[in-house]
Amino acid sequence: MPEQGEHIVRSYEEQLKKLREMIARMGGLAERQVADAAYALVRRDTELASEVIGRDGEIDALERDIENFCVRLLALRQPMASDLRFIIAAMKVSNAIERIGDYARNCAKRAVVISQQPQISSMTGFQWMAKLVQENLKEAIDSLLNQDAAAAERVWAADANVDDVYNGIFRELLTHMMEDARNITAATHLLFVAKNYERIGDHATNIAETVFYAVRGGTLPEERPKGDTSAYAVVRPPV
Amino acid sequence: MPEQGEHIVRSYEEQLKKLREMIARMGGLAERQVADAAYALVRRDTELASEVIGRDGEIDALERDIENFCVRLLALRQPMASDLRFIIAAMKVSNAIERIGDYARNCAKRAVVISQQPQISSMTGFQWMAKLVQENLKEAIDSLLNQDAAAAERVWAADANVDDVYNGIFRELLTHMMEDARNITAATHLLFVAKNYERIGDHATNIAETVFYAVRGGTLPEERPKGDTSAYAVVRPPV
Repeated sequence: MPEQGEHIVRSYEEQLKKLREMIARMGGLAERQVADAAYALVRRDTELASEVIGRDGEIDALERDIENFCVRLLALRQPMASDLRFIIAAMKVSNAIERIGDYARNCAKRAVVISQQPQISSMTGFQWMAKLVQENLKEAIDSLLNQDAAAAERVWAADANVDDVYNGIFRELLTHMMEDARNITAATHLLFVAKNYERIGDHATNIAETVFYAVRGGTLPEERPKGDTSAYAVVRPPV
Repeated sequence: MPEQGEHIVRSYEEQLKKLREMIARMGGLAERQVADAAYALVRRDTELASEVIGRDGEIDALERDIENFCVRLLALRQPMASDLRFIIAAMKVSNAIERIGDYARNCAKRAVVISQQPQISSMTGFQWMAKLVQENLKEAIDSLLNQDAAAAERVWAADANVDDVYNGIFRELLTHMMEDARNITAATHLLFVAKNYERIGDHATNIAETVFYAVRGGTLPEERPKGDTSAYAVVRPPV
């Protein structure tokens, strides 16, 4: 960390600004990973998939930097009230972004395998889902940077759309599996890719919840409606 | 929170002790959920599965209590050095335990559906995996409560076993799907159950890593060897 060698103590405001910049950079990287992993999947672009896998380390490193920076801020500045909540929120959010990066990397790994299997389904649902979660992720992180509780609440509500697309993909893939055993490998990996995007959406929602709490000093009014019904799904094989 | 109405300010040591007790209770609940969800799956016990689903709210509530307690400790006590690291670790660990609770609940939901499907595979792998991750979870949380970095390091190493069992289950289930389309619904849910247990194992490892950092003030020496190779797995249907 560059601060350690400095003789001039940065102002507290500057430090908070730097923290916001680190979060913005980490969020931007994760958005790109989420988008590129989907692009690699849909276009069967294994080169791009490898790039996504290779870039995940940057996100991991940023999480460690942000945590160290926050711990030092807490120790040296002993912030109160809204600053304290912001710093705690920044740590939680960077933790969530790191997980999102892991999911994107896993999607990219599976994209490599899927590209060698027969094409079994239109990828429209995946494109749609990736776009939805990427938007939610961007808005969730912006709501933190702008300390905007109303924006955070909108992200919280938008996750239901992601769940709808996921449930559709889940049923479609099970049907493809039942129609032809040669689809099973590709469909299984696609199931996990869809699940990963659904979880990325969940993490964007969690980020929004954290921001709402940090800004308003309270929790969201009720349990988020959980729209992923696939845990209960049963699809019958063709007779 | 009972503290708010108290006239006597608790000693700092008492507050840290209370924090440890809350973490121990939360960890104990999560261990039970992990064990019961597996038991419900293996015994096809839908009543127990429903209990697991219903109990998840307790874990969520404890996470909120722990976070609020930690934020108050940070604001009122402005702890330094090892206490600060312990409090930050406690928040991160409770966040990970909450996720573990979610995975156990999801396993229980799927256990309900699986119980209505034909039995397609021996459940030995699942029992074994659940036992391994439950042990790792217990040891990871104990390492936090005892501030034991060496114990944390042992948990970190033990996750490779979980990955081995998971990879075996993954391939077995794909084979069952290819043999008979009537196995596909059950096998798909079982794939996600296995994945959930693998993730619970990952979270136990993350807890251990957090504890190591909190106790030693540094990170683990190297990237954990990632033994889940299933993202690259290809299984061929019988000719």
